Amino acid sequence: MRIARFSFNESPRYAFVQTDESDGKDYLVELDGHPLLGGEVAPTGKRYPVDGDGIRLLAPVIPSKIYGLGKNYEAHAQFMHEAGHSEITHAPEDMVIFAKPSTSVIGPDDPIVIPSYSNDMNYEPEVAVVMGRIAKNVPVERAMEYVLGFTCTNDVTLRDLQGLDPMWTRAKGFDTACPLGPWIVSRDELDWRDAKISFTLNGEDVPQANGTTANLIHGIPEQIAAISSFATLLPGDVILTGTPHASGQLNPGDEAIVNVEGIGSLRNVVVRG
Amino acid sequence: MRIARFSFNESPRYAFVQTDESDGKDYLVELDGHPLLGGEVAPTGKRYPVDGDGIRLLAPVIPSKIYGLGKNYEAHAQFMHEAGHSEITHAPEDMVIFAKPSTSVIGPDDPIVIPSYSNDMNYEPEVAVVMGRIAKNVPVERAMEYVLGFTCTNDVTLRDLQGLDPMWTRAKGFDTACPLGPWIVSRDELDWRDAKISFTLNGEDVPQANGTTANLIHGIPEQIAAISSFATLLPGDVILTGTPHASGQLNPGDEAIVNVEGIGSLRNVVVRG
Repeated sequence: MRIARFSFNESPRYAFVQTDESDGKDYLVELDGHPLLGGEVAPTGKRYPVDGDGIRLLAPVIPSKIYGLGKNYEAHAQFMHEAGHSEITHAPEDMVIFAKPSTSVIGPDDPIVIPSYSNDMNYEPEVAVVMGRIAKNVPVERAMEYVLGFTCTNDVTLRDLQGLDPMWTRAKGFDTACPLGPWIVSRDELDWRDAKISFTLNGEDVPQANGTTANLIHGIPEQIAAISSFATLLPGDVILTGTPHASGQLNPGDEAIVNVEGIGSLRNVVVRG
Repeated sequence: MRIARFSFNESPRYAFVQTDESDGKDYLVELDGHPLLGGEVAPTGKRYPVDGDGIRLLAPVIPSKIYGLGKNYEAHAQFMHEAGHSEITHAPEDMVIFAKPSTSVIGPDDPIVIPSYSNDMNYEPEVAVVMGRIAKNVPVERAMEYVLGFTCTNDVTLRDLQGLDPMWTRAKGFDTACPLGPWIVSRDELDWRDAKISFTLNGEDVPQANGTTANLIHGIPEQIAAISSFATLLPGDVILTGTPHASGQLNPGDEAIVNVEGIGSLRNVVVRG
């Protein structure tokens, strides 16, 4: 099942996304009710083409909080080392957990805005986990029961501010730093143990940015268990699982597309703030 | 004006806090409307003693996000140095901005829960700023216009986890790490340039923890300007301005009271999780 949030003539709604076999196109099947709040969720009977006039996909969820994992793939730690961060020799054994605020969330096709004081904004394509139930002190072996599904994210990072700010509060928490979308694919419909991530910049594949969650150092259940051991995760909260390999600069006018096989593509454009 | 959030028989409400001159006691004057959402706010006609039966003060605000300043008083940086953090020689020139999640907020008299994996939980008494209007790219000289008021906070910190976790995500973001209260004192009624902070542990004043916002390195308008330069601050969002001097351990059974002259006292008890 794919769950989308969209607006039609400015009013936000939820929908299931379904492919019509007759024309092979995706349609938004509008819903009464809120897929994250439990209770009845029923189609209203209205259906819109995903690319229809007046239709705009929104971030599929408004998280109360967003956690992310830093240096959670060995290939990414190696890339950072070779990119001049000589202090990073390998991925750390402990999880590096950072936070992004809800105000950093944007949706598909929304602009990523480079803050005026940064000259090195980087993309980081990733799989994002969307929580479905309240989770506190969840053991690893039951962690996936608390997951609603997955979406694509770009963990946009101001590389030149990470040094200034040991908490990465500015480097990863600025407005527009957390694109999410295009929709949520439910837990059981994604092979989350081997989800293939790829990245497209201005229409060209960036193979050195690609990877698979099979190479995560701290796996998704382990991340949920670790985070829920100190903070209560709420329905709709999001975990950015880590970027698999290379990261690179985003400049004004760039088109950045994060692709996760089995989810879809999250496209954003870059502008100067 | 003092703005409180309270529950009476479990249902949360807002109130102005007023002192009755006939008996010198504080009363909750219940309100229709929400002081943070603008529009009409009118008394319902109901009034309750602050310490009345079935009355419980709640955190006066539910922030969408909370930012805090680290090492924002020279005396605190010196204290940390002398307490064995030899790497801290003086307060850094740049602001150290960290975040706490909304799930860390508790109210007056709520228990602060020491996570099972920590053996060094510390108090940090502080003044908290509560935002009243949406703030983005606010200049220093207009910053205070965006403030609703001030409350007391205890920026509870797991000192033994700060090293593990360079982002302080666990050390400062665990459930119950952000007591707020007892109410909000509106902007114009607090001398926020010289607000006197003191701390009481198990009934005894801890003079080495005391201080005044007159000694802030980065002042309150500067904090608002800096944070709003990267993230949009929403009404109800909170900034923890920094702890003035000494910090110290909290152990199970302790009673911790943060006092700010002109605001009031925020009391919490400590339990082991």
